[in-house]
Amino acid sequence: MKRTMVSKQSVKRRSSVSGAPQLIEDLVAANRILAAQGVLDGFGHVSVRHDRHPARYIMSRARAPELVTADDLMEYDLDSNPRDARGRSMYLERFIHGEIYKVRPDVNAVVHHHSPSVIPFGVTPMPLRPLYHVSAFLGDGAPVFEIRNAGGMTDMLVRTPALGRALAQSLGGKPAALMRGHGAVVVGPSLPVTVGRSIYMAINATLQAQAMALGNVAYLDLEEARLAGTHEAMGFERSWELWKRKAPK
Amino acid sequence: MKRTMVSKQSVKRRSSVSGAPQLIEDLVAANRILAAQGVLDGFGHVSVRHDRHPARYIMSRARAPELVTADDLMEYDLDSNPRDARGRSMYLERFIHGEIYKVRPDVNAVVHHHSPSVIPFGVTPMPLRPLYHVSAFLGDGAPVFEIRNAGGMTDMLVRTPALGRALAQSLGGKPAALMRGHGAVVVGPSLPVTVGRSIYMAINATLQAQAMALGNVAYLDLEEARLAGTHEAMGFERSWELWKRKAPK
Amino acid sequence: MKRTMVSKQSVKRRSSVSGAPQLIEDLVAANRILAAQGVLDGFGHVSVRHDRHPARYIMSRARAPELVTADDLMEYDLDSNPRDARGRSMYLERFIHGEIYKVRPDVNAVVHHHSPSVIPFGVTPMPLRPLYHVSAFLGDGAPVFEIRNAGGMTDMLVRTPALGRALAQSLGGKPAALMRGHGAVVVGPSLPVTVGRSIYMAINATLQAQAMALGNVAYLDLEEARLAGTHEAMGFERSWELWKRKAPK
Amino acid sequence: MKRTMVSKQSVKRRSSVSGAPQLIEDLVAANRILAAQGVLDGFGHVSVRHDRHPARYIMSRARAPELVTADDLMEYDLDSNPRDARGRSMYLERFIHGEIYKVRPDVNAVVHHHSPSVIPFGVTPMPLRPLYHVSAFLGDGAPVFEIRNAGGMTDMLVRTPALGRALAQSLGGKPAALMRGHGAVVVGPSLPVTVGRSIYMAINATLQAQAMALGNVAYLDLEEARLAGTHEAMGFERSWELWKRKAPK
Repeated sequence: MKRTMVSKQSVKRRSSVSGAPQLIEDLVAANRILAAQGVLDGFGHVSVRHDRHPARYIMSRARAPELVTADDLMEYDLDSNPRDARGRSMYLERFIHGEIYKVRPDVNAVVHHHSPSVIPFGVTPMPLRPLYHVSAFLGDGAPVFEIRNAGGMTDMLVRTPALGRALAQSLGGKPAALMRGHGAVVVGPSLPVTVGRSIYMAINATLQAQAMALGNVAYLDLEEARLAGTHEAMGFERSWELWKRKAPK
Repeated sequence: MKRTMVSKQSVKRRSSVSGAPQLIEDLVAANRILAAQGVLDGFGHVSVRHDRHPARYIMSRARAPELVTADDLMEYDLDSNPRDARGRSMYLERFIHGEIYKVRPDVNAVVHHHSPSVIPFGVTPMPLRPLYHVSAFLGDGAPVFEIRNAGGMTDMLVRTPALGRALAQSLGGKPAALMRGHGAVVVGPSLPVTVGRSIYMAINATLQAQAMALGNVAYLDLEEARLAGTHEAMGFERSWELWKRKAPK
Repeated sequence: MKRTMVSKQSVKRRSSVSGAPQLIEDLVAANRILAAQGVLDGFGHVSVRHDRHPARYIMSRARAPELVTADDLMEYDLDSNPRDARGRSMYLERFIHGEIYKVRPDVNAVVHHHSPSVIPFGVTPMPLRPLYHVSAFLGDGAPVFEIRNAGGMTDMLVRTPALGRALAQSLGGKPAALMRGHGAVVVGPSLPVTVGRSIYMAINATLQAQAMALGNVAYLDLEEARLAGTHEAMGFERSWELWKRKAPK
Repeated sequence: MKRTMVSKQSVKRRSSVSGAPQLIEDLVAANRILAAQGVLDGFGHVSVRHDRHPARYIMSRARAPELVTADDLMEYDLDSNPRDARGRSMYLERFIHGEIYKVRPDVNAVVHHHSPSVIPFGVTPMPLRPLYHVSAFLGDGAPVFEIRNAGGMTDMLVRTPALGRALAQSLGGKPAALMRGHGAVVVGPSLPVTVGRSIYMAINATLQAQAMALGNVAYLDLEEARLAGTHEAMGFERSWELWKRKAPK
């Protein structure tokens, strides 16, 4: 976990990750989209499972997502060991990604974010539930990962394989989990869907708090959430075109 | 309802819709204005009644509104059948538009949006009412369309003529209705007025929630709302010039 | 009050208002600053008392403030009659300005705005009071103008001299008044101070609502407000340089 | 404390402050970052302790932070006397900086801000406490400086050495203090850490208010806060690269 720096020269070389060009382009776009949409700021990260090697994932070196380029991408095995680190610094919490990919073969993309609007739902007993069809993926609510149960008093970071496994266990088969005093993790079958879920998870959190202040809230019925989920991919693909255009180059 | 894709080439051709050039320009502007003002994001749509054929309306192919150009526009009959689809994908919920134009001859423009601030008012018993003269059109409150009454457990989309009719019935003779767990529909005699109503419906929702937290709220009297409505068109025409300038080209 | 339009050509001529060039430049800047800072949108207006003729004021023709240029400016007498209308459309509510200038010789600039955050304070019994030194001008609270007391059921607009006089009476000797179901009016000895008061009136409203939700609020003592007011002009002059730079040209 | 102006010519000369070029560049960046991130507007200031003369600090002349350039920087001794004023106007509240540097040898940077979201916590009995690891520096809460205890009825400004000392005493050994009816002061071992704390103090305030409305809040345990603090510098260094890129030049 030692954080070493490397000369700028060496990382300016073209990324050596072996994923398909489209996947690389989409992962860079995902970093910039999540920053442009306010889900990520200087912190948080997004990864994608390798298209030809399902036991690997691709993610940036430790860098603010908005600045990530293809040159910053690195390949990891599912124990979150880099395949070619060349001294580049790595996200301390990369175990979030590896441990989820291990137990969730349906998952091809993972976002870890600290989006402000979800933080309150991680520190209060109030469950985060879907207010409208765009956040239908929240189903009957997002589970909350309590790091104290897994690691006692910590620095709050998921910085070991054991903590990563505990988080993956809290997540279970769901698309999103809150992390108490920290943020959230969102997963999905593709980058556009996982990015879309991250964006609307944050919006839903804001709206749920507002609705609760107005009166008794009618959440999506579980069956409505399930049915609305069937057109989720189509919807987020349409938005993806827009998000890419609006993200900084 | 099958969603098919078509080569980019074919849609890049100049729009074949037959509306007046000014109407086409205003409809494209309305798409971009509503995105720039935060009423629409990747979802939602705006249509206009054909200027020479009142039994037709014009709306974009299925696309994020901020990206819509004249090339994307299509003509529909009031059963929401396209007159010249050329394989282009269509909004699943176009029946919202057709069914309202059928029963509301006074209506020349329709916006369907998911503006965040109105969502809480669709899922709680609290009626949305006008706080100030700019949202006078809300009169004695916006009705709420409960899709469960019309379709039981659904995917929440108004994706059939029957659901479109049920929504039009909930709307009645009003300028706006909320849709539970979904968004809202706004109508009006022209694009500037309908766009203006959409923008201030969203602002009013935010302000009403804030006012309710402060104490007992004095809403516009119905007679004040009616009188204020008489200068609505003039006001939104003045804003239209500004909104157009600020919308992305 | 008939609203007539005029060919673009005729208004493109250089403004014939006779104020000092610096005053003209500052008034145009004030329009754009208030829009850039979110106090004005398509509605609202700002005026300045003529520097050589205290019985006149200068204000734009009826136009969205963000678009106002020197060409749009017109001169009015204190009965709000234009000195050289040339068919240009005028703000219906110009009487707000004229009637205040009549009874407040200390006032050299007037802003009428609908800034969202102040609306809730105009429609609830909760008085708007200063939370911190930058909004010290609010003193012991902003009075609320209830148009029903002056005009019964109206379209909510201050569109007659009588309504303007009633508003000026509600304002009294204060720097700002709320208008129920409408917006606010802010006055001051100069454009920078009046613009600054408008901006921080809106911020204070947002903060006061937030503070009230947290617990018992300690407002500025009246004596603290009075003392803090002594460096108001210096502070807003410093901000003015920044606001001008950030306003659209 | 007389505020004098000087011809533009004289201040356009290259800054005569003797700090290391990197420190100068970082201090200019800190001014612009804090403005771009919404912590500072026309008011507030940031200073840094001189790298070779610990009994001096560097800060801009009285100017809106977003406009500050290297030319605007001045050197002060710890009594907040300028070393070379050349008639330039100075922040009235520079004593905040000098008096803190005197008693806190661990502090190398000071930010005084009026960030809107913290104001409510300064005027209510509710303590500001850390909701998540990024604001761990808040520990067991930020103390509140009540200027009435130190100076009775004032204009709310920390405009004397005595008031500066009283504020430094309220701050004690903590990284941040609220100032009732005014704003906050934030300190740290470096500019990136102090800027980071200022940004996340504001975000934490917003989130804490939201969380309190949802239910019982689980704040960071003191031990969690202490441990999370150990990677604070690393995190804010990563963000610093991003903030600099996003700040206006």
